[in-house]
Amino acid sequence: MSNATEAELSGEERLIARYFRPLATHPAALGLMDDAAMLVPPAGCDLVLKTDGLIGGVHFFPDDPADAVAKKALRVNLSDLAAKGARPIGFLLALALPQEIKPAWLEAFARGLGEDAEVFDCPLLGGDTDRTPGPISVSIAALGSVSHGKMIRRSGARPGDRVVVTGTIGDAALGLLLRRDSIMAERWGLKRGHQEDLKARYLLPQPRNAIIDALHRYATAAMDVSDGLVGDLSKLCRASCVAAEINVASVPLSDAAHAASAKQSALVETILTGGDDYEIIATLPADAVEAFRQAVLAAHIQVTEIGAIVAGEGAARFLDQNGKILHFARPSFSHF
Amino acid sequence: MSNATEAELSGEERLIARYFRPLATHPAALGLMDDAAMLVPPAGCDLVLKTDGLIGGVHFFPDDPADAVAKKALRVNLSDLAAKGARPIGFLLALALPQEIKPAWLEAFARGLGEDAEVFDCPLLGGDTDRTPGPISVSIAALGSVSHGKMIRRSGARPGDRVVVTGTIGDAALGLLLRRDSIMAERWGLKRGHQEDLKARYLLPQPRNAIIDALHRYATAAMDVSDGLVGDLSKLCRASCVAAEINVASVPLSDAAHAASAKQSALVETILTGGDDYEIIATLPADAVEAFRQAVLAAHIQVTEIGAIVAGEGAARFLDQNGKILHFARPSFSHF
Repeated sequence: MSNATEAELSGEERLIARYFRPLATHPAALGLMDDAAMLVPPAGCDLVLKTDGLIGGVHFFPDDPADAVAKKALRVNLSDLAAKGARPIGFLLALALPQEIKPAWLEAFARGLGEDAEVFDCPLLGGDTDRTPGPISVSIAALGSVSHGKMIRRSGARPGDRVVVTGTIGDAALGLLLRRDSIMAERWGLKRGHQEDLKARYLLPQPRNAIIDALHRYATAAMDVSDGLVGDLSKLCRASCVAAEINVASVPLSDAAHAASAKQSALVETILTGGDDYEIIATLPADAVEAFRQAVLAAHIQVTEIGAIVAGEGAARFLDQNGKILHFARPSFSHF
Repeated sequence: MSNATEAELSGEERLIARYFRPLATHPAALGLMDDAAMLVPPAGCDLVLKTDGLIGGVHFFPDDPADAVAKKALRVNLSDLAAKGARPIGFLLALALPQEIKPAWLEAFARGLGEDAEVFDCPLLGGDTDRTPGPISVSIAALGSVSHGKMIRRSGARPGDRVVVTGTIGDAALGLLLRRDSIMAERWGLKRGHQEDLKARYLLPQPRNAIIDALHRYATAAMDVSDGLVGDLSKLCRASCVAAEINVASVPLSDAAHAASAKQSALVETILTGGDDYEIIATLPADAVEAFRQAVLAAHIQVTEIGAIVAGEGAARFLDQNGKILHFARPSFSHF
């Protein structure tokens, strides 16, 4: 770029130059100075492509910190890449901003985005910024790569495989309830620290990109848990033409979720169907579970066996301690 | 997919199955049944990546036909791919829908999208659907391919090159004014047919994907005109570290734009800076102009020489018939 004075640039060009060009360090981004990004795809690899977006008032609270909004927008996409065993390549950003957005918000947003782009090695490649009369909207399209033919699919689960899940389930869904209505914390008898843990899980997921080598080595199928464990595992079962039997008592809960559900047992439904977990469900042969657990632990991530794949057609059955099948009013989070 | 009954699927899964799975015919889309798309990139090619979005009330009118909204959303991205000499590979769709959207709207949207995906050979690879309390938002991330190292950049223009542009300029900007205020048509003395021509250009751009071979053969630089000829050509000049001198009288106008600007001469500013043209500006050596024109004509697209690249730093000068430089209040459309 030649030294155009500020006045020669449109408002949109100034906004891009100020907040987003510093993030566009990858050569494919061409400094955000061309119509499009130009990427040399990694040799011998397939591309894994995902788009997911956040809308203010729907996926985050309007007063959430802007850096966390940016990070969440990138991380929900990184979570899908991780579940597919894909290494991040980079991302495109489509940002729609209401008139009232202030420079301080944009600055924090760009800072958060830049931090996570670096942490997860997933640089900004291009983007689009628009005004909107509606809420803030952040759409990201993320690209990843896997060795040719090696993407981990939803469809590879086989009867006899064990079902495992990373981290803990239900925290973000409980955190959302707390954000919506703080009176819940009293009803659930939650300590301050536990309240903060749950809200933090909703605010900012932790994608499991650190375990992709372990997934490639051991998993027969995988997906990320974003719309609730019950509905998402059912999707995996349908894609694999199998069924699953899950012991609800085995589903890993945080101390905070344990405390809340001990006080209000109906919360188990929120925990299992609420979504926003961004953990990974994987299936793997029974004799690989221990090796997988060790490999994942090396990345300081906990993994828990919660059940098994059985023959059947596309259902995930969640069993209580007496072996009774639980039924859920709404197995999956859905906007529609 | 196994035969899950409708009741087992979430509302979102039903929506995807009904409207979008029929479009996801490319193997990379995996039938929209996995977390992500999986694309085998074309051998020996670079990927060209672009995201651009439409927001209801900003980029289209809420009562525009849904099939035209879908087509416009895809075409604004295809226009960028064309300007870069890239062949479309496919696209990701992030769709945010207000509560009041009816099945008939979605059906027409999906039909329009499917028609253009086929016409431009740019299939749906994946997507995301959300509810929004704001207006309809359609974000598309499009992927294209060019032979390695052959993407046509903004930065290749050299002093002595001629500047050419496809089609006609200003129609969409005038069409937008007509849509906003139909009284304009009387003031401009426009025949009914001319009014319809201008409004049609705003409703639905015609991306110039048919000329990419000619661009590869002759163009030193190119970009699409989406934010107005004046501002966009300035961007190309800045990227190439050159200046341009354009004869305003040479800028190709439709009969409708001629008629309107004959009646109201100030419209020349709208025509040259209004945007939404989705034509292509290219620069090429003087001795290649005629061959380029013939090659483009073979695709039934008109191309017009409007000026020349000269030495200088990043400015595009628009000259009237007396050689006087015109100044514009706002050279480029900008949301900010």
